[in-house]
Amino acid sequence: MTHGKAPTDPRSTLVVTAHAGDFVWRAGGAIALAASRGEKVTIACLTYGERGESAKAWREGRSLEEIKALRRGEAEQAAATLGAEVVFFDAGDYPLTATRELTDRLVAVLRDTRPDVVLTHPLDDPYNGDHPAAARMALDARVLAQAVGYPAEGEVIGAPPVFFFEPHQPEMCGFRPEVLLDISEVWETKRKAMECLAAQRHLWDYYTDLAVRRGVQLKRNAGPNLGLPHTTYAEAYMRPYPQVTAVLA
Amino acid sequence: MTHGKAPTDPRSTLVVTAHAGDFVWRAGGAIALAASRGEKVTIACLTYGERGESAKAWREGRSLEEIKALRRGEAEQAAATLGAEVVFFDAGDYPLTATRELTDRLVAVLRDTRPDVVLTHPLDDPYNGDHPAAARMALDARVLAQAVGYPAEGEVIGAPPVFFFEPHQPEMCGFRPEVLLDISEVWETKRKAMECLAAQRHLWDYYTDLAVRRGVQLKRNAGPNLGLPHTTYAEAYMRPYPQVTAVLA
Amino acid sequence: MTHGKAPTDPRSTLVVTAHAGDFVWRAGGAIALAASRGEKVTIACLTYGERGESAKAWREGRSLEEIKALRRGEAEQAAATLGAEVVFFDAGDYPLTATRELTDRLVAVLRDTRPDVVLTHPLDDPYNGDHPAAARMALDARVLAQAVGYPAEGEVIGAPPVFFFEPHQPEMCGFRPEVLLDISEVWETKRKAMECLAAQRHLWDYYTDLAVRRGVQLKRNAGPNLGLPHTTYAEAYMRPYPQVTAVLA
Amino acid sequence: MTHGKAPTDPRSTLVVTAHAGDFVWRAGGAIALAASRGEKVTIACLTYGERGESAKAWREGRSLEEIKALRRGEAEQAAATLGAEVVFFDAGDYPLTATRELTDRLVAVLRDTRPDVVLTHPLDDPYNGDHPAAARMALDARVLAQAVGYPAEGEVIGAPPVFFFEPHQPEMCGFRPEVLLDISEVWETKRKAMECLAAQRHLWDYYTDLAVRRGVQLKRNAGPNLGLPHTTYAEAYMRPYPQVTAVLA
Amino acid sequence: MTHGKAPTDPRSTLVVTAHAGDFVWRAGGAIALAASRGEKVTIACLTYGERGESAKAWREGRSLEEIKALRRGEAEQAAATLGAEVVFFDAGDYPLTATRELTDRLVAVLRDTRPDVVLTHPLDDPYNGDHPAAARMALDARVLAQAVGYPAEGEVIGAPPVFFFEPHQPEMCGFRPEVLLDISEVWETKRKAMECLAAQRHLWDYYTDLAVRRGVQLKRNAGPNLGLPHTTYAEAYMRPYPQVTAVLA
Amino acid sequence: MTHGKAPTDPRSTLVVTAHAGDFVWRAGGAIALAASRGEKVTIACLTYGERGESAKAWREGRSLEEIKALRRGEAEQAAATLGAEVVFFDAGDYPLTATRELTDRLVAVLRDTRPDVVLTHPLDDPYNGDHPAAARMALDARVLAQAVGYPAEGEVIGAPPVFFFEPHQPEMCGFRPEVLLDISEVWETKRKAMECLAAQRHLWDYYTDLAVRRGVQLKRNAGPNLGLPHTTYAEAYMRPYPQVTAVLA
Repeated sequence: MTHGKAPTDPRSTLVVTAHAGDFVWRAGGAIALAASRGEKVTIACLTYGERGESAKAWREGRSLEEIKALRRGEAEQAAATLGAEVVFFDAGDYPLTATRELTDRLVAVLRDTRPDVVLTHPLDDPYNGDHPAAARMALDARVLAQAVGYPAEGEVIGAPPVFFFEPHQPEMCGFRPEVLLDISEVWETKRKAMECLAAQRHLWDYYTDLAVRRGVQLKRNAGPNLGLPHTTYAEAYMRPYPQVTAVLA
Repeated sequence: MTHGKAPTDPRSTLVVTAHAGDFVWRAGGAIALAASRGEKVTIACLTYGERGESAKAWREGRSLEEIKALRRGEAEQAAATLGAEVVFFDAGDYPLTATRELTDRLVAVLRDTRPDVVLTHPLDDPYNGDHPAAARMALDARVLAQAVGYPAEGEVIGAPPVFFFEPHQPEMCGFRPEVLLDISEVWETKRKAMECLAAQRHLWDYYTDLAVRRGVQLKRNAGPNLGLPHTTYAEAYMRPYPQVTAVLA
Repeated sequence: MTHGKAPTDPRSTLVVTAHAGDFVWRAGGAIALAASRGEKVTIACLTYGERGESAKAWREGRSLEEIKALRRGEAEQAAATLGAEVVFFDAGDYPLTATRELTDRLVAVLRDTRPDVVLTHPLDDPYNGDHPAAARMALDARVLAQAVGYPAEGEVIGAPPVFFFEPHQPEMCGFRPEVLLDISEVWETKRKAMECLAAQRHLWDYYTDLAVRRGVQLKRNAGPNLGLPHTTYAEAYMRPYPQVTAVLA
Repeated sequence: MTHGKAPTDPRSTLVVTAHAGDFVWRAGGAIALAASRGEKVTIACLTYGERGESAKAWREGRSLEEIKALRRGEAEQAAATLGAEVVFFDAGDYPLTATRELTDRLVAVLRDTRPDVVLTHPLDDPYNGDHPAAARMALDARVLAQAVGYPAEGEVIGAPPVFFFEPHQPEMCGFRPEVLLDISEVWETKRKAMECLAAQRHLWDYYTDLAVRRGVQLKRNAGPNLGLPHTTYAEAYMRPYPQVTAVLA
Repeated sequence: MTHGKAPTDPRSTLVVTAHAGDFVWRAGGAIALAASRGEKVTIACLTYGERGESAKAWREGRSLEEIKALRRGEAEQAAATLGAEVVFFDAGDYPLTATRELTDRLVAVLRDTRPDVVLTHPLDDPYNGDHPAAARMALDARVLAQAVGYPAEGEVIGAPPVFFFEPHQPEMCGFRPEVLLDISEVWETKRKAMECLAAQRHLWDYYTDLAVRRGVQLKRNAGPNLGLPHTTYAEAYMRPYPQVTAVLA
Repeated sequence: MTHGKAPTDPRSTLVVTAHAGDFVWRAGGAIALAASRGEKVTIACLTYGERGESAKAWREGRSLEEIKALRRGEAEQAAATLGAEVVFFDAGDYPLTATRELTDRLVAVLRDTRPDVVLTHPLDDPYNGDHPAAARMALDARVLAQAVGYPAEGEVIGAPPVFFFEPHQPEMCGFRPEVLLDISEVWETKRKAMECLAAQRHLWDYYTDLAVRRGVQLKRNAGPNLGLPHTTYAEAYMRPYPQVTAVLA
């Protein structure tokens, strides 16, 4: 019914985030895993996080344009490390406001990249309204891009599964780990990508600890596992739409 | 850490249900699919549904023993049709009461069958208290069977994923389809198994309609699908524990 | 399918409560309204509230038997005032424990009174575990009484609608007013019934204020009302099962 | 307090929907029932569903104006079949965006039709953002229309009860059947109205099956029913506001 | 990290409300308590409630400007009675619409008053959309005001705890009393402030009854209390963010 | 109304846990803090965790009695380190079953220790049914101990606030940090107590990381903080009952 991609096309992943650093901390493992399998990963980064997540640079007296350039450079380096391409919308953060125009630009990206899977923020975050704004636009655009009547370039897409990555304070955002993704084999890559974000050095260990913690949880839910390595690293995700499968596992 | 099965063992599925007919209506597709792949499926049937789900037979004046035999025969025939083995606990229904002894017998079945996946009822059902009682015991037994200190025969098991199958009035039981299983290729088998339950003829079409309806929903959530057949049949499940995976899809 | 009552039979209401005073404070208006229409109302009172709700009497040095007799007398007087009959189970309170035997006795009452509507406590109450225990048994018995295979006297009943009446601390019990019952025309009767409970004099005004408050809320939700009296008295209820109707209103 | 309608006025129902076909599939029974009792039913249709729900016409190469005309024609025919009047806002769909102007136009319709009951979409729908947008405006307008200070023509209205009709994927929208409306006596009319929507032929049987399914559920919740017909057809609704009543039933 | 106030500064409270009367009915006790301790309390009142909460004045034929002046006068008198300062935004009510400009003005107030605690409406209110709009802006502004990169006068603030005060129909707004504040010692002051709102005389007793009711609940949750006065007055609040403490109590 | 303790009595804390190690990992900081202020802390430990949480000992071939002794010794040493007294019920774990007798023994402990605060497990834990069983009994006993009519030694108690400590997989247990307790000043003591539990060495760092993580969260919610130390350690708790307070903070 929809014009899917040919079976020979590589799988495609689209990551929609509010700020320049989000994709690294929250989904770096998933991105590196997909890239390591030869898949295409595109990151739509709606803002540079220039106002809300660059306190250090502001305190050092940098200008807005300097800060944007700094954040952009770090994010590009991190994306390259993970094996992904990043697209910047420069929509302005703090607050990022959902608009029809931004949503329309996301429809264009969706019809262009034709993702098999979409990653974005959860819909609630009482600590940062930019995250839900980005997620809301990502979900809206994903629905619009499926409609043949929607006036945008490109062919309609199917209904790719969506995954919400883990917010900074999960329990306060209604986040429950519904999917635990084993990222052990790309862990070193994710760590390297995190280290590209020099201004947020205090988060390097924080997100390393989180990966270990989610890895412990993965092992507690892993069924009859025989040979999991001693330290398993994992990322947690939610699914707003049902999983479609041919096997219960 | 746990003593899993050897990689050469076939996969094993355990279905824990309250009444003799439950596994057919609610999970017949999953059972037939697993069996069709050469996997082992065991159904632990806690009661025959002799009091709560045999109104027709009671109105015809059958005795309790006759009704149990009737239900047992139908269930065995349906299980054979699906390719599964069924074990009867004869614990007495309406009400089925959770007890330590029944839970202990389920631990024994778990350690014996060493399932890779467990299917059971959801934990809420305001129309039939036997269903939650069965589910509660299934979940408790699954936890106990993992403990080396629990005094039962057999080796400890891992933490097999659990799936709740769909209740008769899903919205009233807090049921949300989290997993949609494509059962199109075994649909004819499930229909045949349903037809073994002669006394509940009115449910044959009812559950056929439900399978079509869940199939429509599956297609709406199936991502960039190209070649799904016109009529897709599906069953819906919930996951009380997180999915563990190496790929987001 | 079920053996309903003849259309000429008066409507029947069954109220299942944990303690002797509950039906007065929480459902006295509904009871008086039904009785005022010539309907039959039966109250199944599982305990006298002798331990948990009789602090004053204990402090005065009364014996257990004296307290039971006191509470029984007050409740009978209040029931008579409202126009209802009360049946005491004397099951022992604080704690009231759900048992198969008590549930079975409730099945017998259900089959005997053949209610068109059942009133009971909500299923959660962190301040008094006896209330949920009574509600759980009432709901279980209502399901069992519908099964022809359940071994009890009397004919099977239909599926009477259930209403949960308002607990003492509604927001802490997950209580949301889903039905607002206008009890203005029987308000004086309810007040008189409350005054039968001499030992809980402090609650007379408390529950009068609550009735006024729920009346204000009723008026705020009453649609295009023309002629509601200045002071409207109301009681709030929840519905655990869907309303069945021929008109949306 | 409010200026209600005179007791001699017929009852009035207002249906607020996002797209041209919504009122047929989701509330056609309620509309036909009200009309069959001689009541007035007005449908405020915010868009023609020209972009989001007209895939077939787009694939056939129709222009936007052609598609709007087509959808309008079908909807008018269906409304006439049901016995209702339909008002088109032509606000543009996919996305339908909530605005102050649209809300204001709905206030005017509310003050003009003075409804005794309002039907609209539920507030959540992860598959179609137009539905919540329409519902949100309907609810806002209903509140504004009650305020004497709100600058619009007409007299203030009361607070009419609101019913949310059933979305296409109920469990994914948090939809729980709180009211089951028996539409058996107007079933043939609803079916005829559905058949006016020629482009969505695949939904005719789908929504027939749903009506049967909700009818089965209605019978399971219908209390001591004596003479329900073999096949009962029903529609399911939610109530965001409490029911106000003089009788518990 | 943040530039807090000097330890010698008095504590500061900021109350953000939609309409001129809200702070009196809902948080008058908290305001009076803080003021009685010598603390500074600022009320940001986004509208005068001129359209939605001034029915009496409209019926008397007053003009919009007269009504605004009336409401402003009453609110100033009530604020003075409580010991607080009130700032009017005159943003227009019914509907109050969240905008970037209003949010920005709230950031300025936050950076200016540097509150130790923020009080506002809960995020849901199906009876009045202005309340959630005000709360949403208050929460957004509180986050923005913490960012050094946000372009506003004044120094960044910390993350002051937030309390939601009680809406008019608490159970319908998802309101659960999470904090019960004893306002007995300032009760007379709150009553006097309520009496400044002459046009809403019917609410004086209503909110007095509510304060008594919350006082009863406070005593039921007060732990090993020895000497609480016979009548305790209280206000209820929710906490959207975790409490930070050095003692569990 | 209740017989509280004399103002001169030290504060008393009661911790009710399922297994011997629970109080250390989950509430060691709160216990050490209270003890450091000269308060009395009593731990009611319902089982030794001999079957469910002693896998290593079972694998080493220890007997049931040896394992109990081992766990008891470790727990006593940890309690002494924290400054608390521990009472063992030896009720048998995996499963721990809620009974009237155990609840009654807890009533006795409550009337004896007269706690100002009660700590226990949350009510849901899909990974370990013993935890909810312990919590359920703790809450029931707390209610029963308040009733003068309940037949137990000692005087009735007030209604002490309850705190649920953090489970091992918080998001899967519905756990949301509602209270963040700063335990920095007793952190070394908690670490030492953890090290008493030699068999669970892998948890030492795990719970150290958790304390750091909760400390980061505490700082993010701490309001206008001036001088928090670089590393803050914290424990998270939930409140099932409302907080009673004289100051909003």
